[in-house]
Formats: sequence, structure tokens, C-alpha cells
Amino acid sequence: MYGDISAKAAHMLSLPKVSDFFTRLIQRVSPKSYQQAYGEVYVTQKFLENFCGDQVRFLARSFAVPGNHLGQQSHGFRWPYGPVAIITPFNFPLEIPVLQLMGALYMGNKPVLKVDSKVSIVMEQMLRLLHNCGLPVEDVDFINSDGKTMNKLLQEANPRMTLFTGSSRVAEKLAGDLKGKIKLEDAGFDWKILGPDVQQEDYIAWVCDQDAYACSGQKCSAQSLLFIHENWSQTSLISKLKDLAERRKLEDLTVGPVLTFTTDSMLEHVNKLLEIPGSKLLFGGQPLKDHSIPSIYGAIKPTAVYVPLEEIVKGKNYELVTKEIFGPFQIVTDYKSSQLPIVLDALERMHAHLTAAVVSNDPLFLQARFYVTNQVIGNTVNGTTYAGLRARTTGAPQNHWFGPAGDPRGAGIGTPEAIKLVWSCHREIIYDVGPVPNNWEIPPST
Amino acid sequence: MYGDISAKAAHMLSLPKVSDFFTRLIQRVSPKSYQQAYGEVYVTQKFLENFCGDQVRFLARSFAVPGNHLGQQSHGFRWPYGPVAIITPFNFPLEIPVLQLMGALYMGNKPVLKVDSKVSIVMEQMLRLLHNCGLPVEDVDFINSDGKTMNKLLQEANPRMTLFTGSSRVAEKLAGDLKGKIKLEDAGFDWKILGPDVQQEDYIAWVCDQDAYACSGQKCSAQSLLFIHENWSQTSLISKLKDLAERRKLEDLTVGPVLTFTTDSMLEHVNKLLEIPGSKLLFGGQPLKDHSIPSIYGAIKPTAVYVPLEEIVKGKNYELVTKEIFGPFQIVTDYKSSQLPIVLDALERMHAHLTAAVVSNDPLFLQARFYVTNQVIGNTVNGTTYAGLRARTTGAPQNHWFGPAGDPRGAGIGTPEAIKLVWSCHREIIYDVGPVPNNWEIPPST
Amino acid sequence: MYGDISAKAAHMLSLPKVSDFFTRLIQRVSPKSYQQAYGEVYVTQKFLENFCGDQVRFLARSFAVPGNHLGQQSHGFRWPYGPVAIITPFNFPLEIPVLQLMGALYMGNKPVLKVDSKVSIVMEQMLRLLHNCGLPVEDVDFINSDGKTMNKLLQEANPRMTLFTGSSRVAEKLAGDLKGKIKLEDAGFDWKILGPDVQQEDYIAWVCDQDAYACSGQKCSAQSLLFIHENWSQTSLISKLKDLAERRKLEDLTVGPVLTFTTDSMLEHVNKLLEIPGSKLLFGGQPLKDHSIPSIYGAIKPTAVYVPLEEIVKGKNYELVTKEIFGPFQIVTDYKSSQLPIVLDALERMHAHLTAAVVSNDPLFLQARFYVTNQVIGNTVNGTTYAGLRARTTGAPQNHWFGPAGDPRGAGIGTPEAIKLVWSCHREIIYDVGPVPNNWEIPPST
Amino acid sequence: MYGDISAKAAHMLSLPKVSDFFTRLIQRVSPKSYQQAYGEVYVTQKFLENFCGDQVRFLARSFAVPGNHLGQQSHGFRWPYGPVAIITPFNFPLEIPVLQLMGALYMGNKPVLKVDSKVSIVMEQMLRLLHNCGLPVEDVDFINSDGKTMNKLLQEANPRMTLFTGSSRVAEKLAGDLKGKIKLEDAGFDWKILGPDVQQEDYIAWVCDQDAYACSGQKCSAQSLLFIHENWSQTSLISKLKDLAERRKLEDLTVGPVLTFTTDSMLEHVNKLLEIPGSKLLFGGQPLKDHSIPSIYGAIKPTAVYVPLEEIVKGKNYELVTKEIFGPFQIVTDYKSSQLPIVLDALERMHAHLTAAVVSNDPLFLQARFYVTNQVIGNTVNGTTYAGLRARTTGAPQNHWFGPAGDPRGAGIGTPEAIKLVWSCHREIIYDVGPVPNNWEIPPST
Repeated sequence: MYGDISAKAAHMLSLPKVSDFFTRLIQRVSPKSYQQAYGEVYVTQKFLENFCGDQVRFLARSFAVPGNHLGQQSHGFRWPYGPVAIITPFNFPLEIPVLQLMGALYMGNKPVLKVDSKVSIVMEQMLRLLHNCGLPVEDVDFINSDGKTMNKLLQEANPRMTLFTGSSRVAEKLAGDLKGKIKLEDAGFDWKILGPDVQQEDYIAWVCDQDAYACSGQKCSAQSLLFIHENWSQTSLISKLKDLAERRKLEDLTVGPVLTFTTDSMLEHVNKLLEIPGSKLLFGGQPLKDHSIPSIYGAIKPTAVYVPLEEIVKGKNYELVTKEIFGPFQIVTDYKSSQLPIVLDALERMHAHLTAAVVSNDPLFLQARFYVTNQVIGNTVNGTTYAGLRARTTGAPQNHWFGPAGDPRGAGIGTPEAIKLVWSCHREIIYDVGPVPNNWEIPPST
Repeated sequence: MYGDISAKAAHMLSLPKVSDFFTRLIQRVSPKSYQQAYGEVYVTQKFLENFCGDQVRFLARSFAVPGNHLGQQSHGFRWPYGPVAIITPFNFPLEIPVLQLMGALYMGNKPVLKVDSKVSIVMEQMLRLLHNCGLPVEDVDFINSDGKTMNKLLQEANPRMTLFTGSSRVAEKLAGDLKGKIKLEDAGFDWKILGPDVQQEDYIAWVCDQDAYACSGQKCSAQSLLFIHENWSQTSLISKLKDLAERRKLEDLTVGPVLTFTTDSMLEHVNKLLEIPGSKLLFGGQPLKDHSIPSIYGAIKPTAVYVPLEEIVKGKNYELVTKEIFGPFQIVTDYKSSQLPIVLDALERMHAHLTAAVVSNDPLFLQARFYVTNQVIGNTVNGTTYAGLRARTTGAPQNHWFGPAGDPRGAGIGTPEAIKLVWSCHREIIYDVGPVPNNWEIPPST
Repeated sequence: MYGDISAKAAHMLSLPKVSDFFTRLIQRVSPKSYQQAYGEVYVTQKFLENFCGDQVRFLARSFAVPGNHLGQQSHGFRWPYGPVAIITPFNFPLEIPVLQLMGALYMGNKPVLKVDSKVSIVMEQMLRLLHNCGLPVEDVDFINSDGKTMNKLLQEANPRMTLFTGSSRVAEKLAGDLKGKIKLEDAGFDWKILGPDVQQEDYIAWVCDQDAYACSGQKCSAQSLLFIHENWSQTSLISKLKDLAERRKLEDLTVGPVLTFTTDSMLEHVNKLLEIPGSKLLFGGQPLKDHSIPSIYGAIKPTAVYVPLEEIVKGKNYELVTKEIFGPFQIVTDYKSSQLPIVLDALERMHAHLTAAVVSNDPLFLQARFYVTNQVIGNTVNGTTYAGLRARTTGAPQNHWFGPAGDPRGAGIGTPEAIKLVWSCHREIIYDVGPVPNNWEIPPST
Repeated sequence: MYGDISAKAAHMLSLPKVSDFFTRLIQRVSPKSYQQAYGEVYVTQKFLENFCGDQVRFLARSFAVPGNHLGQQSHGFRWPYGPVAIITPFNFPLEIPVLQLMGALYMGNKPVLKVDSKVSIVMEQMLRLLHNCGLPVEDVDFINSDGKTMNKLLQEANPRMTLFTGSSRVAEKLAGDLKGKIKLEDAGFDWKILGPDVQQEDYIAWVCDQDAYACSGQKCSAQSLLFIHENWSQTSLISKLKDLAERRKLEDLTVGPVLTFTTDSMLEHVNKLLEIPGSKLLFGGQPLKDHSIPSIYGAIKPTAVYVPLEEIVKGKNYELVTKEIFGPFQIVTDYKSSQLPIVLDALERMHAHLTAAVVSNDPLFLQARFYVTNQVIGNTVNGTTYAGLRARTTGAPQNHWFGPAGDPRGAGIGTPEAIKLVWSCHREIIYDVGPVPNNWEIPPST
């Protein structure tokens, strides 16, 4: 049945009238450009296409292995949890709830869904579309509440599994409250390293700009810290980054309001960073002008602050530098080849990051990285890691897994593997139908 | 390398001198018969055989999917957590720690291992054997401590993952303390249902006796509650169960000391149950005699108490009846075909069980069961479920998954799937090496 | 790209106007009822839905295993053959060519397609629809020719793989001509066994009627030989089969022209069978009347001939009885429990069959069957085998594999596994990028 | 059972006395160095380790997918063929027959084995070892005969599958005789390309020497044609190849008798090549001296002939140059970057090759290669392809698939995937146990 619903819903979202409606609705509640908002609709449509026809059935594929006597066989199933909960944030009001909700339903669960109440109108409309495509109204409970009410509901209803996408702070609290019956995809302090091989400067500058500032930096995969190899110092990369950042404007929402930090708190953070010796403002660092954004939200120009590598790793600075600002803001630093161990040390000490990128086509550099990867990055939680000239930190499509690694509570989104991991558990059923051998006799007790 | 270590260690355990040494060592610290203790050694040996040669390498198998432009490909890896902890109980001093420890090592983790200090000498000897087979001494940290010290160590060292096998009470506490960075295999109140098709009475009676009383009932998979269809009432099943239970004796440890309940506390539990209207003592219910078991341990004859089904489901009785006694004790009840929904209701309300068995070859009954399974059992945590004439609750070999279901924190043990689930997480690495198209130009910001 | 084409084509086929067009077009060239013709369109649509979105990409999933030194990793790919050929028969003018053609394209091959020229207009229209949905015209070559010309083309063009669906005779010839570079799905002499548990008489009679006579028996999966357990003799099964067969009429094509046998040749076959001692005509055995079917085709009433089991297995009769008549015709026999070995012997001696059904819910009977299966049926080529009360031989949907087994040349159709097996081969690429160890020196020759 | 046999046999082969016995026995019948002969024993031992314990059981893993109504489920099995045949050549008298024989047995087949009669004593001894480890004597038929007798036996016994490893000529004949019921691993004209990035000269020269001349070039994976990028012309690569080739001597069998070509026929081939304009003898080209090798075998020094690329691709030369000499002989050529398309054209026109190597760590070159790979190499049969600085053509271990690609008859050896592909076929069993819906009524015929 869910194959049919998905096929119909995917077709609906492919109609220009419908996709335009949802794109504009997203823009109304979540400040991002038309293209970025449309991206959500497109990824959602493609995801639904992936689970047309019998593909939902194929998700429930089990396996069997012969037992050790005639008539015995063990079957490994992906089994639903039953009653589950889904809690999703403001920044992707369509994509995250649809992908997780449908995943939960595909595997046979009974979900209750809560979307951040500032943006829940998008999902409310989408549910109507899904009902229209055949989703039984009793299959999903949709709740609008503040976090406190939801927390109480979770404690009382005690769902077998809760998927939480949102801030690390709330994630940790919930994990304790729910005694770990949870899967998490929390925000990340995501890094990118530019390797020693300088090439395709324009392309890489453009990817950096998009990674850091698209959606005003309010993606959990946004680039927060950029390590640049010294070989890039003779290029105009930094000035290109500046030019690109300055193209962004409020009119088309290529930069826009920040929902979780005020302008003052962000500028104060910038000023604290500038007190670190050797640090400097590369660009931005000023409030947006001529706007009517309420003062409870933030509004600053895309900003980058340079901090020297040796200062970053100092104990007193480290926490400050790696504080995540969910807005159009990044730290930039540089390193020499001989400083690679310091870079790795800086990465090793982070926690709560999600994506990472190593921009290089130099196999020896990648090799070095991956040797290290096994020892250092393996201990971090960068689940979705891009490698190569075109590496990015944001813009993950539905065709690959997106999620943190290194944490047993880590969730994933998008692919069949993600759905199976998050929304089902292993259950083993062993058929043992006999016959009992003809000459069987009661053996001694053991 | 771990393939070679496993091959050598498996060969060592296959030598009679070595397997006899470990069997007797197990018996010295964990009260069970020679056969039951030898079973641990045998399963451990077979497990090690399963990961000889390149099979450890094959566990690390990744997959890749083409991306959406030339030069892009996403790779899904099973990735180690890094520093992890393993905590295992007294009842399987060899099998549980070896299987979990080797699983952790196979996937590339750095484990610290704590075995219940009453029995840790077994694993201390096994580690020496593994070192002799090539295990580098620095790959495993082995700690002997009480639970309190271990809890403190976990909170401070903050391992990325902790595997805990033991009681539900400690499991829940740890899950909260570690904010859910844990996988659990806790004790269970395991049930068995005899279906309407009466056959192979001797065989089924023997399986029931072993499931309930082998290892003095101190298996997490031991049968705690037996539902018998009314069709069995004309057979001598109950008297056969009684005869089999009375064969058990202290001399060969087919019944022995109970480590977590005293004799008095168990007999008091029996007496409370006998106060329920209609309940009666089927057999046992008396202390073992002529022994030198210290009074901090328990020592009772294999015991079964009958409680009417309609009394079991009453609110005031339910908690008492489903209290797990980790000893040679079970509840027995019966049901009519029309009472199947009451049975299912009783099962639905349980929590913390592990294994289950449906003893029937009647396809309509199994069909009914599995229709129900999707609604009711799916909401319980019976991970390893046996179906058919020869169904049992205990005695899982290494060739099928053993573990709870229905809980995102649930661990598994034994199979490649169990190792991959417990000891690794998904990590996605996306190679995106280009080239950038020749005619590429900087697009507008989004 | 093929994900998009599939999504569009699936949507097109879901439009009533389009599906009705293709259903009637199929009826014009291949004699079957509206329902049966519509079934082809429906299965084709569902198949296309299965490969929407990224599912084509997921078909190309590879795996990788770490090598035995730093920098080495082996990757196993499903690799296309390159230039391939597809030859499909008259009886399924839409379903077979679309499923195989798209499978070949999904895996990256360059196919030339030949459909039986009597019915190729259906596929000619479908290709136009696919072109309209985005299929590049140069991706498929479509050829209309007789078999002789096609055979010559194959010998000269020497495609790396040829998929042939059609008669066993042509299949064997082609296999020799192409030196085995071929996958085959040939006609089958398919059998069904009714077990000892008599139940659901109406339902089973109806399934038997459909299996034997739908599409006038011109399915490669049509039931050709029915074994009935003696327990059914007290039922009215045979008279029900007769009643159902006599409902069929030319007007709605529930019985219709036979394209590969004339009326005379079929009636002659019936007469030869009736010469076997103990055999008798159960129903049918007469030409259809009042029709304008050309005499080069056949036109008979649905027919069943009873032949005693002990006569079937006699050397001189066996070949006659198991001769496949691709028309509305079946052999019926009965057996006692003690004769099961004779039934199995009869099955073992067959060759070239495709589907089979064991109609029973008796686990002991199925158990017996499957014990035997491993020894006897394993040596036959019944690839798609149905077991249970609702077992059938025809009507396979797109959600399970359909194809013969027991032959390395056997093809499959429908599922991801079938596509991967038929349209791709294994290729292993081993990356071994180094580094060479620092202290490496040239070793002695070996 | 086969898990136990494999564990015991692997342990036996790990004993120095046993491995030395088999190594020397191989040397007695197949001319190769101690190291090369020991390599066979080692790979065989590791292969057996891979299928200890439950791993044979895991090979038989099936999968299941829910059907489209209650009580239906389809199961996909890997099913044995039943009676099968295995024919293996002289050059690997232990490794090839053991790996294929055990693969056939693991999947449940009943094999008859024929090893080249010149070397069959090795396998005769190995079978005794396997019997000693528990292999039932009736499970394998072992036949000693010439090819003609074997061909007759195959035609009469008509095994469901025949695995043939040997020359292309016999392979093609057998494929026709057996109507394609065959899997082939035939000899190959294997090539290696050195890319533009010059590095690790000593290492690469040594790999080239081993690939071309180990086992006197009598491996089906031996390097027959070496393409060197012009950047290497300033290095001393060729003189290093010469020095390495001249280290080889008859005493330790680092060069030895050739079993399928005489000295004269090989020297005649060299002379014909030297008539091509621009070609020259790089080294070798002379008979071995001071030996007692019978004249029906060949005995020449390791030989390399340079032929200009533009001459290789000329119609009249191409067939001569790509004639496979199963001995210590290779062709060498060079190319400029601009000539890459000519190289690819030369590769495209080959048939019957098995392995290939692209020696480069330059991602742009590899990228170019792999772009091309999809178009050109995809049409060839290089199944096992090595890429990177350490790429080779020979020396495949048991941990990755070895076999040709691009041919539906292609076999593989070594890995679980190879065993499943070669020794089993897909069989689908659909359980459909009902119940029939309560309100079901006979529908109209279709």
C-alpha cells in the first residue's frame, strides 16, 4: 500500500503547481532562497520515487539460514518497533519530517510526529496531500505543542523509539530522559580541509560560500571551520570568498534571519574571537540593514573570522572557537604541511559534528588522511564525509546516507540502509518443525 | 590478523585437554553441569571457527553506489566506534565475554572488558590463551572491579559504546548514566506456549524441563511462564514434567546454587503466589538438603506453581506473577482456544523479555499467532522466537542471532549481523573527484 | 536518467486511457481476455514503478573488502555486458519485452530487441511511449524479422549475451549456435500436486482452471499435469473443474485460438493418449464451433485427459504424456500416499519445466515434499515453486523472481535479483595504490 | 558438516610437514619454484579457513519478501544444480581443483572431478587427506582419463553444470558440445599499462618480472603485453626488467619447462614478430642450456620483444602479436599521451583475456581510464582488474574474486560470491498458505 501512496505523492510533488506551492510555503516560515526551498521539495519527491511499487516490500526483506538439523531454519527479520515518535526542527520543515515519517511507516511503525511549531504548517499541508494519496488518517498522529509538553508526552507514552533531529543540548537531555531509547541527528560543528593541490579556485570558492552561507548557515551540515593549506596563500581564494559572500542579499533570502541567535549575541561572539592574538575579521561582522526582522531573531552579514591554528588548539580558546553558531558564520584558518598533526588534533577533540570534507585529488594527501582516518576520525562523529576536488559539506541528496557516525544513538536519513537502521530492529525467528528422530529417547538432565 | 588468531584459538579449544580445562574451570565458579559448561566451550570454539581466514575481513565489507555526476560515488562503511566497554555477567563466564570481545575487536574497536568478579578467572585464563594465539596484549584492557568502580570508570572515560549484559535494573540505570550510548542484553521473563496439536509428549516435556531448569534456571533465556492448551489436559505432561524435575540433583549440578536469590526469598515468592485463588504447587517448593551452599546463595528444588490464567491478568497479581526469579522456578497455566486473546494480552503487558517459543506444527495456529505477532509481539521485546514442534527458549547456538528486539538499545550476540550491529556504526564517505565540467561558471547564490 | 524514464512511463501506464489502449492492442494480436491482457499492462506498470528514482542507481551497488596491506581494497561490481540481444515470444507481447529490455538498459547494456513479428506492433507502440518519456532513440535497436534472419544477425554481430524467451527447441539450437552465450526462459511442462488435506474445494478448483486454461493455456507457466491425492476422490473436484472449463467461451476470449498447434494436431494427441489403458476423456476434446479462426491456428474446447499414474511412468507412454501442448489442455492423474515415490519419479524424469505447485497446508506432507525437494526437485528445473493451500503455477507478479532453475543458462524476470543475474556479470577491480613500504627491497625471483 | 571438514583440512595444511609434502609434490609435476608451489598450498589453506564453522551454512543464506496478501511470502534460494563436473588444468594442480571442488560441495552438488592427468597425483593425495578429515567417499567421483574420454562422458552423463578451466580452444568446443551448460575460466592475453607518473621504478620492474615470468609464464593471469608511457623512457626500466629476467635459472625452477609449446615453436614465434618493422628483441630469445627437459616440452630464457604500437594495431600484425604463448614470453610497447586512443583500440579488439593492470596513482589518468573503462573495457573480458601504483596481473589471493567478465559463461574462483555464482542457481519458492478470505466467491473466468 505504501508503494502506491509514495508513487502518487511523488507524482503530485512533480507537478509545478504543487511544488511551487510547497516551495513558497517553506519560504514563508523558514528563511531561505527559492532555490534552497525548492531543493527540499525536489529531494522529498525523489525520496518518494525511491519507494514506489514493491520497494517498500523489498525493505522488509528478511534472510534465512539453515539450522543444524532437519526441519530447522533461522530467519532474520527487520522488525518494526511499534509506537514511535518523531521530533523535527525548523530548518527543513518538509524534507526531514517527510523522510523520517515515511521511513517509520514503511517499516510498519505507528508514529506520532511533532514538527517545530514555527514551521509545522508545511507538514500539516503535506499530511493532507498524503491523506489524499491514500494514507489512512489513523496511521499517523500529528501533534502541535511546545517542547515541554512534548517531553511530558514522551515520558508518559514511552514510545519504543524516538527520532530526534535538533540541537545537541536538547538531544542529550532527551537521551537521558528516555534512557537511550532514541536515535539522534544533532547539529554539528562541521569542518572542511583544503589540501595542498591548488586547482579549480573558482569552483572551490563557490562551494565554500554555499556550504557556509546557504540557508543563512542554518543547516546542520553547514561549514563552520575551514582549514586552508598554505599553498593556497598565493591565490585570491579569500578575496573570492569575500566577493561571493557580499553577493548575498536579503531581498532574495540568500541571506536572511537567524532563528536561534540574536544579532547582538552573534556580534558579541565575533568580538570575543577577535580578542584572540593574530585573529582578524575577513569579511562581514556587521548587522544587516533596512529590514523588519524582529529583534528576537538575528540578522548579520555573512561573516568569516580568521584565527591562527596554534591559537585554536589552545585550551582556553578551543571551546570558544568550536562553539556552534547556527547562522551565517565561519572560522577560517591555515596550516603548513608540517602542521597536519595539529589539524588532526583539533579535529579529534571536537564532539557533535556531522559532515566533513577533504578537498584534494592528491592521492598521497588523501592516503595520509585515510591512514589517519582510521585512528583519529574514527573517534569523531563525522558520519557523512566527502573526499575529492568537489567535496562539500552540505547539499546531501536522497541518494546517499546522511547522518552522524561514532555514536550508537546516531540516526541516518535518506537511503534504504538509513530507514532500516532507524526504523526497525533485528528479530530472529527460528522454525523448528521437526520431525523428532524416530529413535529419540529422553537423555539425562543437564 | 584476527582471522589467524581465531583459527588458532578455535583449534586450541578443540583439543580435549584445553576444552576440559575450561569446562571444569567454568564449573568451579558458575554452578552448572559438565554438559552445560562444556556447551559454553563448544559454542565459543564454533564461533571462533566462523571468523577464521578472511571472514573478519569480510565483516568489514562496504558497499558503493554511483553518484549523480561523473567522478562521484558514495561508499557505506561499517565503522568502529573506537574506545568501547564490555560488561558481562556471572552465568556465562566464557561464552558471553569471548563472543562480545572478539566481535568488538573484529570490527576494529579498542575494548575494555569487565567480567563479573566472581567468575572473571575464566576470562583471565582465556585471555592468556588468546595472547598465546597472537592477540597483542595492548589490544584489550581487562579490569577487575566491583560495579561501582566500573560505573565511575565509564562516566569518566566516556567510551563511545558500552555493551552491558546483565540485570534489567542495572541496565536501566546505566542507560540513563551513559545517556543511551549503550547496547543491552538484559534478563527476560521468557514464555512458551503449547498449541492445540498434542504430539511428541516426551520430547516436549524434556525440552520444557531443560528450558526451565538447566543451569538452575540461571539463563537469561530460561522459561519462566508456560501456557498449555487445554487439549494437553488429557495427557500426562504435568506428571512427566514433575518426574523430569525430580531427576535433577546437586551431585552433578543438574540443580545447584542460585547466586542472586536466597532460599528464603524464593520460597516466600512461592508462598505469595499460592495465595492467589486457584493456584497450586505442581512440584518442588522445598529447600535442597544436605549441602554446604552458603546461605547468601539460594538452594531450592526445581519448582513449578500453577496459576489460573484469569488470575494472572488481574492487575494486582500480574506484577507478582511476572516477577523474574533467576533460579529453578516457573509459572504454569492453561488456556482454552477461546482464551487466546487473554494469553496475548498477558504477553503484551510484559516488558523485558528476550526469548519466546510457540510449540505447534498446526499452520492455522501458527498463522493466528503470526497475524497477532505483527500486532502484539511486535510491541514486546522477544527477539529470539522459536516456532514449531521442537521450539525451545534456551540453548541458542552461535549460528543464529540471540538478543532482544523492540528496543533501539537491544544488543545481539553470535552472528555476523550481531557483530556488525553492536560493534560498528554506519559511515558514509562520498568520493567526488571531478572533473568540474569544462564550461562551468559560478552560478548565482542560493 | 532511467529512474526518471521509469517514473514517467509508469505514470503514463497508470492513466486509464493509456492502459486501455495497450490492453486492447494486446488483445488484437494475442488471443486472451481483457483481464489477462490488462494484467500484462498492470505488471509492466508496477515493474516500472519499482525502478523509479534512485533504484536504478541502487541496482549498480558494488561492494568492497579491505585487502591485505595498506592501500589495497577489492571492489566487486555488477558490470554490463555491452552489446546484447533480446528475443521474446508472442504470448506476452508487452510484459516480457519491456521487463527484459528495461533490465538490460538499467544495467548499462546496449540491446537489440526482436519481438515475435506477429505481435511486435505492441512493443513498437511502447517504444514510442518510452521515447516520449525520455528514452534516447539510440539506446535501443528494434528489429522486425523472421527467426532465420535474426539467427544470422546473432551469428554475425556476436552479442556478448542473448536473452531468449520461447520454445525449448529453438532455445537448444540457439544455445549451441551461440556457444552458450545465452540466458534462456523456455516453455515448461508444469505440474501441480494436490496433497492429502482436502479443503477449500471451490478455491482450488478455480485456481486449477485458471492455471490450465487462462490465455488458452498459452503461458509458459500453464499447468500441464495435475496429480490429485486419493483423498479428493470423494469430493466433486473433477466435476467442478469441468463446470469451470465449460464456462469459457470465445466471445470474451476466455478461450481462443492456439497459435502453435492446429486443431487436428491437438485432437490427434488426445486420441493417442486415450489409447493408453485406463485413460479417459474428462471433458473437452472437441473443436470450437462457429468461429472464423484460420485453420493454421488451433481452436479446441478446454480439455483434460485422465491417465493412470502407473501408465504415465511406463517408458513408452512417458514421452507422449509429457509432450507439451501449448494450448488449453492438461493431463490429470491420481495417486495414493504409498505412490508418492512414483509421483516423484515421474517428476524427476521430466526436463524443461518452469513452475510447480504443491497444494497442501499439511506440514508433514510439505516436510516430506521438501525432504524430497533437496534430492529430486533439485535435479529438475522448476524455478518458481509455489507451496501451500493457495499454490498456483501461473500469474506470477513482478514482485517475485520468475524463471527456471537447475540450468546455468536459466534466466529470470522481474526482480532486482533477476535483472542483476541476467543483465550483468561480476567484475572485480582491485585498487592497490600503495605506498610501497619504506624499507622495501627487491626480493629473489620465484 | 563441510564446515568441520574444512576446519580440519585447513589445520592439516597449516602443519609444516603436510604443506611441505604438497609443495614438493606440486613441484614434481608442475614446473615452478618452491615459493610458487607453496603459494598454492597456502592459498588453499586460507580458502579452507574461510569456510570453517558455520560459514558453509551462511553460503546457503536465502532471503524472503512479503507477498501481496496475508499468508504469502516469496523466498529466494541459492540452489544446487545436482550432478556437476569439474575439469581443471596442469598449471595449478592443487589450488584450482580444491577451490572449485569444495565450492561445488559447499553448495550441495554431486561433482565428478577430472584433473589434467599429468598432475592428477596431487589431487589424488589431497582427496585422501579430505577423506581423512571426514569427507564421505561417495560425495566426490574422481576420474583419470584423457580429454576425449572425458568429453564422451560429459555428453552421455549430461551433468547439469560443468566447470572448465583451461585453454580457450577447448573451452569453446565444450561450450558448443554442452549447449552452454558450462562455466569457463580460460586462458587470457593479459595486459598492463604503465601510466604517465613515473615512480617506484624498482618495485614496478619487479612486479612486471613476476607477472610475466613466474611459473615460467604459465599462469592464465600472466602479463602478455606491456604498454609503457613515454615518460618512462628516461628511466632504466627496460634494463631493470632485463636484469631481473636474467636472474631466473633452471636450478630453482624460477624458469622451467613449458608444457604446451616446444622450444622451436616459441622461437619461431619470436622470429615472426621480429620481422615486423621497428620491432626488436629486448632480452631472452634463446633456448635454455644444459638441461634434460624432453623435447616435447619447451625451454627458453625469459623473453621480451618490443613491437611499435602503430604496428601492433595493423590488421595483419594484430593476430600475431596477440597470440597467447603460455610460456615465459611477453610483448612490450610504448605510447605517448596522444596515443591513448590507439592503446584503447588495441585493448578493445582483444578477446579472451582475464586480468589487467593500470599502474598509476595519477587520478586524472585513472579517471580517463575509467571513463573509458565504461565504454571500452566493459566490452572486453578482463574480469580481475588491478589499478594503482602496486597493480599486478598475477598473484590473486583467495580473498578476492578471480575470473573473467563480459561473458555469461564466465566462472569465478575464491570468494563466497564466486562459489554462489558458479555452483548454485536461483530458485524461488513462494509460500501461500492462506487463509482464503471468508467472503471469497468464484470470480468469472479470465
